[in-house]
Amino acid sequence: MTLSVAVSGASGYAGGEILRLLADHPDVEIRTVTAHSSAGQRLLAHQPHLRSLAHLELQPTTPEVLAGHDIVFLALPHGQSAQYTDALADTALVIDAGADHRLTSAEDWAAFYGGAHAEPWAYGVPELPTAGGKQRDNLRGARRIAAPGCNASTVALSLAPGVAAGVIDPGDIVSVLAVGPSGAGKAAKTNLLASEILGTANPYAVGGTHRHIPEIRQALAAAGAPGDGIRISFTPVLVPMARGILATSTAPIVGDATDAEIRAAWVEAYADEPFVELLPEGVFPRVADVLGANVASIGVAVDRAANRVTVVAAVDNLVKGTAGAAVQSMNIALGLAETTALPLNGVAP
Amino acid sequence: MTLSVAVSGASGYAGGEILRLLADHPDVEIRTVTAHSSAGQRLLAHQPHLRSLAHLELQPTTPEVLAGHDIVFLALPHGQSAQYTDALADTALVIDAGADHRLTSAEDWAAFYGGAHAEPWAYGVPELPTAGGKQRDNLRGARRIAAPGCNASTVALSLAPGVAAGVIDPGDIVSVLAVGPSGAGKAAKTNLLASEILGTANPYAVGGTHRHIPEIRQALAAAGAPGDGIRISFTPVLVPMARGILATSTAPIVGDATDAEIRAAWVEAYADEPFVELLPEGVFPRVADVLGANVASIGVAVDRAANRVTVVAAVDNLVKGTAGAAVQSMNIALGLAETTALPLNGVAP
Amino acid sequence: MTLSVAVSGASGYAGGEILRLLADHPDVEIRTVTAHSSAGQRLLAHQPHLRSLAHLELQPTTPEVLAGHDIVFLALPHGQSAQYTDALADTALVIDAGADHRLTSAEDWAAFYGGAHAEPWAYGVPELPTAGGKQRDNLRGARRIAAPGCNASTVALSLAPGVAAGVIDPGDIVSVLAVGPSGAGKAAKTNLLASEILGTANPYAVGGTHRHIPEIRQALAAAGAPGDGIRISFTPVLVPMARGILATSTAPIVGDATDAEIRAAWVEAYADEPFVELLPEGVFPRVADVLGANVASIGVAVDRAANRVTVVAAVDNLVKGTAGAAVQSMNIALGLAETTALPLNGVAP
Amino acid sequence: MTLSVAVSGASGYAGGEILRLLADHPDVEIRTVTAHSSAGQRLLAHQPHLRSLAHLELQPTTPEVLAGHDIVFLALPHGQSAQYTDALADTALVIDAGADHRLTSAEDWAAFYGGAHAEPWAYGVPELPTAGGKQRDNLRGARRIAAPGCNASTVALSLAPGVAAGVIDPGDIVSVLAVGPSGAGKAAKTNLLASEILGTANPYAVGGTHRHIPEIRQALAAAGAPGDGIRISFTPVLVPMARGILATSTAPIVGDATDAEIRAAWVEAYADEPFVELLPEGVFPRVADVLGANVASIGVAVDRAANRVTVVAAVDNLVKGTAGAAVQSMNIALGLAETTALPLNGVAP
Repeated sequence: MTLSVAVSGASGYAGGEILRLLADHPDVEIRTVTAHSSAGQRLLAHQPHLRSLAHLELQPTTPEVLAGHDIVFLALPHGQSAQYTDALADTALVIDAGADHRLTSAEDWAAFYGGAHAEPWAYGVPELPTAGGKQRDNLRGARRIAAPGCNASTVALSLAPGVAAGVIDPGDIVSVLAVGPSGAGKAAKTNLLASEILGTANPYAVGGTHRHIPEIRQALAAAGAPGDGIRISFTPVLVPMARGILATSTAPIVGDATDAEIRAAWVEAYADEPFVELLPEGVFPRVADVLGANVASIGVAVDRAANRVTVVAAVDNLVKGTAGAAVQSMNIALGLAETTALPLNGVAP
Repeated sequence: MTLSVAVSGASGYAGGEILRLLADHPDVEIRTVTAHSSAGQRLLAHQPHLRSLAHLELQPTTPEVLAGHDIVFLALPHGQSAQYTDALADTALVIDAGADHRLTSAEDWAAFYGGAHAEPWAYGVPELPTAGGKQRDNLRGARRIAAPGCNASTVALSLAPGVAAGVIDPGDIVSVLAVGPSGAGKAAKTNLLASEILGTANPYAVGGTHRHIPEIRQALAAAGAPGDGIRISFTPVLVPMARGILATSTAPIVGDATDAEIRAAWVEAYADEPFVELLPEGVFPRVADVLGANVASIGVAVDRAANRVTVVAAVDNLVKGTAGAAVQSMNIALGLAETTALPLNGVAP
Repeated sequence: MTLSVAVSGASGYAGGEILRLLADHPDVEIRTVTAHSSAGQRLLAHQPHLRSLAHLELQPTTPEVLAGHDIVFLALPHGQSAQYTDALADTALVIDAGADHRLTSAEDWAAFYGGAHAEPWAYGVPELPTAGGKQRDNLRGARRIAAPGCNASTVALSLAPGVAAGVIDPGDIVSVLAVGPSGAGKAAKTNLLASEILGTANPYAVGGTHRHIPEIRQALAAAGAPGDGIRISFTPVLVPMARGILATSTAPIVGDATDAEIRAAWVEAYADEPFVELLPEGVFPRVADVLGANVASIGVAVDRAANRVTVVAAVDNLVKGTAGAAVQSMNIALGLAETTALPLNGVAP
Repeated sequence: MTLSVAVSGASGYAGGEILRLLADHPDVEIRTVTAHSSAGQRLLAHQPHLRSLAHLELQPTTPEVLAGHDIVFLALPHGQSAQYTDALADTALVIDAGADHRLTSAEDWAAFYGGAHAEPWAYGVPELPTAGGKQRDNLRGARRIAAPGCNASTVALSLAPGVAAGVIDPGDIVSVLAVGPSGAGKAAKTNLLASEILGTANPYAVGGTHRHIPEIRQALAAAGAPGDGIRISFTPVLVPMARGILATSTAPIVGDATDAEIRAAWVEAYADEPFVELLPEGVFPRVADVLGANVASIGVAVDRAANRVTVVAAVDNLVKGTAGAAVQSMNIALGLAETTALPLNGVAP
């Protein structure tokens, strides 16, 4: 059976990537694509690389247009999701690529986003360990899914195995991320101009203000960390690559954990995961290795001199960081093969 | 009086940048430039941007050619400096842009470089606090100077004020650096090809193996940290910008240090420094802000949620990180005005 | 039936891209991958993005290893193909991604390459018009195929329709191409270092020396241009993008050709082509639109003030320019569906 | 005597570069910097690399603020200059970095810009040959100067010597330019976002619509081409470098001009020019060679197979293309040494 799909925000980067993946999905039909100011134009005018969808025209993003599909993807700025909730009450599956339904804590929402706190939905990072299993368990049969923040899921995937196994201390995490500008979306802003980003590296949200911090805390708490004992120093740095995240995360080694015990935590957590790649000892990932692929590639080092475990993770922010996570979660929710339409190979160089 | 200068390694990036700066220096005459395989060719064939030096031809890098100048700059791979020592015994000032004379600890040298440990020279980062003052004191009248490692001096400048003031704990430092490939030199290596670096971020020396780690420890020890109590998790990441370092360094806040006390440490350390720029609270530097300039630009954040101070520093690895540090140290050693021929303004965008 | 495949040069960029495409091809099994200095290592060590081929190990590139497969791809530097000819005599299909078998003229070979001139093979650009039809006709059932030069096929596809229709004059063509460094391969060369390519645009082979010039002439002659009446000013410019070609080609308008007649030449030539995209009037392609896709995207402008037709074409040099052309030609030669395993959609941004 | 200067558009790229150069000019004092929406803020907030001007605050761009200086630079979008004309009637020297005063032909203005055609001013490309000498002659003592369009001056400098000497035919010029996005200014536009420019090459104004075309025609006519016999096919391509133009221009060889005659045209035109660098035969410039420098670097090839001369020129669009041209013209107009405050050396890599 073919399921009908609507994708909002289809003229943007996240929406475009959802479409790129769904275009090859045998079980869905992309029936509707929507946008705001570009409604009425051909999709191809905004996504000229999506030739197989050349027949589609952008509709306005309204509750009426989105209603009536089996699956709806919301790729909208945060805060916009709520206005479509009622109209989509009967929709079998709604996946929000925005932040609205990620946080369980109203307090965190108020502190980092502000405005009304919406209901938390199943968190779309299937591979993350939880107390009783994995986040995948919450996605099976789910009708409402929150795709993750790209930086948050990258850091959470980096550290959760060690936290769950009790070999690293979540109380003093430091994460620094090299990120590409596509994660900031397609809206015209001076600080995202090519002239401002070519040839330079630009930090932002320094000092603990980035909105993905509470999302990381929440994911690590779900993995077994004491909720009030998680501290994260988090600094993202914009670098001149269109896509990608290279996250370097470190946490103190707990007590007398051996190298073997430390490595085993990651090996066991991801042994059967199709889309989390744990690299051999001494090998670390590059963004180039995951571009276009639905893969988080992870290398783990034990640095005894620093008494820290250093985890380097590479993710394509638009695929495993957003659209791939959304489609993977969709597959799980609907009982389809989890890997359907999700590329394992990247495009390099 | 005009001083005669020889620059070895003149066909490379560090050598070229030393020449770019010296070309505008009123007190020196660049008499000799040397190289290995390119000896006999015009300098302009290798440094086409250095038009004011079009008259120069590359000589072979031999003790005989380098001898007989007032000042000699060695911009050579580490381990090559020793063979010129005897021939330069009478040279008034020798500045080594390589690593040979940076480390005081033979043990560190053996562990991170290997081979014979050479005599440590005055360390060319004038602004760094020391027990009794600043590294500048050691440079006045010095006849032998070790220009710093670019990553090392960037991190040392970031953290030394807080260490010296006792407001941050050097026992659990984490530094992650976005660095451009010019720091790795001009030798042809597959991993430095444009195709391997464009569109990606690539970590290297992960897990505590980078050679600049002992240099940072040494600089922080000089600034007052207990020598055996310094621990650094250090991860460099190559990103697609030709030049520049954007270093994010964090360290735990000590005890009950207040925000004002913390900020005061950096304000006082750098108040009178012409080439270290402490940005206003809430402002952080970009690599673009320092390209071409002999400036370390630093922003300091106090992150109470993480209980860490986060320092972001931007440096042009070829200027303040190498050639500018060398020329600034030369100015100090010779009693010239310290700022001579050193650009304060950058070239942006 | 599954056909066995060997790919030589598998550690390089062209070989890697052939593998990326074949990995998704339902009719072939990649049985053997070969390399020179890297033989004995895992493929993944050189192509970490090709996870689905993680089981493969690089064999040495020898006649013995390559023999015994149904299909062999040679992704080797020019001049190396001949040594495998005898061993592959019984191989059903050999596709050379190098230049050895592209040129029909021994004189051109001598002038632009030198060394022994090998037998010309069927030219792997199916869409190019020829006197009686298209190059596709020569590929059907072919046992030996020369994949095209990436720059050559891009320019030939840009201009052949106008030449074949007699609306542009091949006697005064000017082509200038912005090209990414991956076309120059993975061998370590100083001029291909990231530091030499980031932030700059570098011309090469200026003044009519590029080896793809005779290949363009040959393709246009096949499309109907008088062989001795073709003149091409051809200038490639390296720019800081890993992949891609953006070719701007112009030729004089012939006589009183109308705008409609001119446009009709391209419309008719490419109306039924799955992998040549003729953009609407006033729209021109970007490299971003074709990255990862087996598509030549073409925009045509009639510039009456200059009395020239300007054609802008975007091609991913590694896909439609090389590996995609090879696989598309393979599909045709074997009677498979021409579009099998060839992406129509690109990966953007 | 120190001359007082006001720079409008000081928060933008052209204004910033004028300031970078003037900051080192011994004969001027930058008294006033102005902007529109940013008035009231510190200059440093918008130009953090201009540390030596840290004391300046942006004033509003009004006639009153700009009046009363010896020299005024207008770095404003075209069409805005006229409103300041009256207020600046007594200003000794006004230099417009915008397009308003470049074109002598009202017809061209109407066709390519539209709106009221303003009085043409002395054209700020001193090195360009004219019937009786050089454009420099018109700049001596000038009170009103139009700084050139960056693309226009690059192409004009490339071809004017050959046109003036009668060795190339201006009737069939083809120019294709790789250009960096800073030439398009700092206004936030979607097509200038880093995500749209990284990893790609994007053509624009294809087919003869670019506004610099009539400016090139005018400059070549001044160099001696028959005004109605100049035809230019002109295509700019945005590539991922912040600054720079790499222009490839070709024109047919006239009659039986010999290689020596052709080369002599450029040699003679630029023999004594400090800021136009004619490279040796067989050598061609890269953008990297001119970054930060007030230099047009030019290589000339005679392509007999194509019957064309190919000229490759590299220019930093913000320096020799705009701000450097403006300051150089200022120096000439005021009778100062022409090279004052203008860098000959670039910043590379």
